[in-house]
Amino acid sequence: MQKPSLPKGTRDFGPIQMARRNYILDAIKDTFQLFGYQQIETPAMENLSTLTGKYGEEGDQLLFKILNSGDFLKGVVPEDVAKGSVANLSKLAEKGLRYDLTVPFARFVAMNRNELSFPFKRYQIQPVWRADRPQKGRYREFYQCDADVVGTDSLLCEAEIIGMIRQVFSKLGLINYSIKINNRKILTGITEAIGAEGKEGPLCVAIDKLDKIGWEKVQEELQQRGFEKSSLTRLAPLVDLQEGVKARISVLAEFLKNSPIGLQGLQELEEVFLLLEQMGSNLDQVDFDPMLARGLSYYTGAIFEVKAHEVTIGSVCGGGRYDNLTGVFGLPGVSGVGFSFGVDRLYDVLEELNLFPRHRLEGTQLLLVHFDQAGFGYALRCLTVLREAGIRAELYPEVTKLKKQLEYASKKELPYVGICGDQEIATDTLAVKVLATGAQESLTLNEVIAKLQASI
Amino acid sequence: MQKPSLPKGTRDFGPIQMARRNYILDAIKDTFQLFGYQQIETPAMENLSTLTGKYGEEGDQLLFKILNSGDFLKGVVPEDVAKGSVANLSKLAEKGLRYDLTVPFARFVAMNRNELSFPFKRYQIQPVWRADRPQKGRYREFYQCDADVVGTDSLLCEAEIIGMIRQVFSKLGLINYSIKINNRKILTGITEAIGAEGKEGPLCVAIDKLDKIGWEKVQEELQQRGFEKSSLTRLAPLVDLQEGVKARISVLAEFLKNSPIGLQGLQELEEVFLLLEQMGSNLDQVDFDPMLARGLSYYTGAIFEVKAHEVTIGSVCGGGRYDNLTGVFGLPGVSGVGFSFGVDRLYDVLEELNLFPRHRLEGTQLLLVHFDQAGFGYALRCLTVLREAGIRAELYPEVTKLKKQLEYASKKELPYVGICGDQEIATDTLAVKVLATGAQESLTLNEVIAKLQASI
Repeated sequence: MQKPSLPKGTRDFGPIQMARRNYILDAIKDTFQLFGYQQIETPAMENLSTLTGKYGEEGDQLLFKILNSGDFLKGVVPEDVAKGSVANLSKLAEKGLRYDLTVPFARFVAMNRNELSFPFKRYQIQPVWRADRPQKGRYREFYQCDADVVGTDSLLCEAEIIGMIRQVFSKLGLINYSIKINNRKILTGITEAIGAEGKEGPLCVAIDKLDKIGWEKVQEELQQRGFEKSSLTRLAPLVDLQEGVKARISVLAEFLKNSPIGLQGLQELEEVFLLLEQMGSNLDQVDFDPMLARGLSYYTGAIFEVKAHEVTIGSVCGGGRYDNLTGVFGLPGVSGVGFSFGVDRLYDVLEELNLFPRHRLEGTQLLLVHFDQAGFGYALRCLTVLREAGIRAELYPEVTKLKKQLEYASKKELPYVGICGDQEIATDTLAVKVLATGAQESLTLNEVIAKLQASI
Repeated sequence: MQKPSLPKGTRDFGPIQMARRNYILDAIKDTFQLFGYQQIETPAMENLSTLTGKYGEEGDQLLFKILNSGDFLKGVVPEDVAKGSVANLSKLAEKGLRYDLTVPFARFVAMNRNELSFPFKRYQIQPVWRADRPQKGRYREFYQCDADVVGTDSLLCEAEIIGMIRQVFSKLGLINYSIKINNRKILTGITEAIGAEGKEGPLCVAIDKLDKIGWEKVQEELQQRGFEKSSLTRLAPLVDLQEGVKARISVLAEFLKNSPIGLQGLQELEEVFLLLEQMGSNLDQVDFDPMLARGLSYYTGAIFEVKAHEVTIGSVCGGGRYDNLTGVFGLPGVSGVGFSFGVDRLYDVLEELNLFPRHRLEGTQLLLVHFDQAGFGYALRCLTVLREAGIRAELYPEVTKLKKQLEYASKKELPYVGICGDQEIATDTLAVKVLATGAQESLTLNEVIAKLQASI
C-alpha cells in the first residue's frame, strides 16, 4: 500500500475545474475559428536539439529531459561521473518536454513549408512543462493557448488580434479590462530621441515601476543604470502622458520626429487603429502605452498586453510581431504575429469576479430517482426518452433510499431531480424537483424536455 | 541552421487531421456528457512510485522517465556505473510520463476520496506515452479516451456502456459493427466445465485463432499447452455456436450448469440484456461471445470489445468491469466498470469508409477577396458583419492578385469566396463563388449569412 501523491508543481483538474476551463477554452476556440485560425497539435516530446538554445541559458536549465529508453547508461564510463551532469546530459537524454508552443510551431512550419498555404493562421492549445520552482500561481505543467499568423506583414493581423481579444472577453462577460498596445520600433525611437540608443531593456524595467515608486525614484534607478541626466530630462514628457490614443499619438509624433524607425512604428500603430475603425470596432478598451515592453529580444513590431481591472492579477494575455520565426530551422524570412491567452489567470479572474455560469454547461441536468424496482424500471424508459431529446440525464444506478440519491444529486450540484414513484408511473409523469429551491411539480416527459431545453 | 525532425514514434497533427480528430472526440464527449460522465484531467508526469509495478515488467520498461532537474548525477558515484541502468534509475529519475489513464484515475480517486460523490462517473481524454518500438499504427504518444464508473456494482453501468457505444457510432455514421460482450466469470466457468481450471489465458489465446487456423489446429495448440483430450471434447460444442444472443445463452446455461461462478456470469449478462430491453435499446449490433477475453488479469465481470466491419482494423474500443481499482493506493473495495474508445483506429475506420464530413466543421466558411485598396476597405466592413452573425470568415490580408487569393482559398479547401469588386461596392453586395463548382451569384450580406447558416 502506498500513499499516493502528485509531483510537485503539478495539478489534477476535477470535474468542476474542467467544466470551467472548458467554458474558457470554448470561448477562445470559437473565436479563433471565427477569425479563420486552424488548430494544430505537436507532440509533448521534442528532440533536445530542437529545444535547447531557444530560451536562453535559464530556459535550457528549466527544460524537462526524458531519460533515454533501455540501457541509458550504455555510453557512460565511470570517469564520466566526475565531469558532472551537464557534460553527461547528451549521453543520457536526447528528448525533452515542450517548453512553450512557439518553438514547436516554428519547427512545424519549417518541416511542413511545402504543404502549408501562407499566410498560415494556426492556433494551438496544449500543456507545456517547465522545471521552475513551484509557487502560488506558478506550475510545472500549465496550458498555453496561442494563435499566430505567419507569412504576411499585413497589419490586419494586428487589428484582428484586438478583435479576437474583445470577442473572447465579451463572451466571458469580462467588461473592465484594457488592451495595451505599443510597437517595438517606438521603443527604439524613444531611446534614440533621448540619446540612450540600445537601452530599451533597462528603460522599460525602470519605467514599469512608475506607479509603485514614482518618477523621482525611477530617475534614480535610471541614473544607476547609466542613463545621462539629459536623457531623463528629455524623457520627462512621456512620463505623465494624457489619456487617449489620439492625444498620445500626437505627442509621440513630435517626440520621435528625428527618429525614422520611431516614426515607422508610430505609423504602423496608426494603421492598426485605422483598420479597426474601418472594421467598425469600438476602441474603448484599447490603450496606447509607449512604454509597454515585452519580449524585447524577439518582438520587432506590435506589442500587446491585456490586463483585467478590479482584480490584482497581472496581465492575462500578451503577444507581438516577430521577424524571423523559423530561421533557426532553415526557413528564413518568415515573419508573423502571435498572441497568447493565459488560461490559468483568466480562470482566477472569472472566479474572483464570480463570472462563471452557475450550473455547469456540460453537467447532468436531471437525475432520475426512485423508491423501488418498479420505479427503477419506469425510470429506465424515461432515461432513454430524455437522452434522445438531448437532455443530459442520469439514473441513480442502485435501488436504495431516496435520501442517499438526493444527497448524490446535491453533492454533484445538479439542478433537477425527477422522482419516479407509483403515482408518476400511474400518470406517466415525473415529479420534477428544483434542488436549489425545493420547488416540485408534476410534469409529463414532454414538459420536462421543454423545460430543460429552455433552461441553460 | 538545423534540419528539424520529430522524435521517432511521435506525430504532428495538422489542421485537417485536427478537425477530423475533433469531429470524433466531440461525438464521444457529447455522448459521455449525455450519460452523466464528468471530465477530469491529470498531469502528464506522475511519480514513478505511482506508475511502476502497475503494468507488469514489460510495462515498467516501456515507461518514459523524466531526468531529475538540476544536478541529476549528484547521488551517483563512479562505482555505480558498473551496476548498470536499472540499479541507477532511482537516483536519476523520480517521475515518469503517464502510461495509461487508468492508474492516474485510480490515484485521483484515492487522493480525492472524501470530496468525490460515489458512484463517480468520469471521462478523461489525454495523451499517454509508451516507449514501444514504433511501427505502422503504433505510436509512442497517442490519445486515450476513457469513461469509468466507480463505486457501484449496478449492471446499469454495463448497459449504459453499450448505449454509449451505439450513440457514438450512430453520430459518426458507422453502421456496420459489432459490440462483443462476455463475462470473465463465464470464462472461468468454461474452464471449470471442461476440467481445465485456471487456464482461461491459454484457452482464449488459442481459440482466438479459430477463424484463421481452424478447429483442428486450435486443438493441437491446446494440447501443446497442456489441455487434456477430454477437455477438448467437452469444449467442442462451444466452438461452433449458432448466432443469436438468446440461443447462445441457452447453450451456455446447459454447459455451465455445474459451475456456480459460470452461472453467475451468465446471469449478470442476462441482466444487462434485460436492462437494455427496458431502456428500449435495439440489440442488433450486440453479440454474446463466450470466448471473448481481454484483460484477464484485472477484469472480473463484463468484458467488451467493438469491431468495425468492412475494414481490416482490429478492435476500435474495449473495456470491462474490475473489482479493486484503488486498493494499491490504500482505498480498498472500489469496483467499477470502464470503457475506452480507440481514437486513432476510429480515425482510420472513418477515413477508409469515407465517413468524414466533406467540409471541416470548424474551418473558415468564406474568404473575402478583392482587387484593390477600395475592395479591401469594403471587405473590412463586410468581415465584421459576417463574423457578428457567427460566420467563420477571413479576409485575404494583403492587396494582391486575385489569382493568388483564390489559390489560397482552394489550397485551404474553403467552400466559398466572396469577391469585393467595384460593382459589389456600388450595390452593397458580394459576388459569392462556390469553389467546388465555380458557380457564382451576387448576394447581399444578409443573403450570404442566410445561405451560409443554412449550409453546414
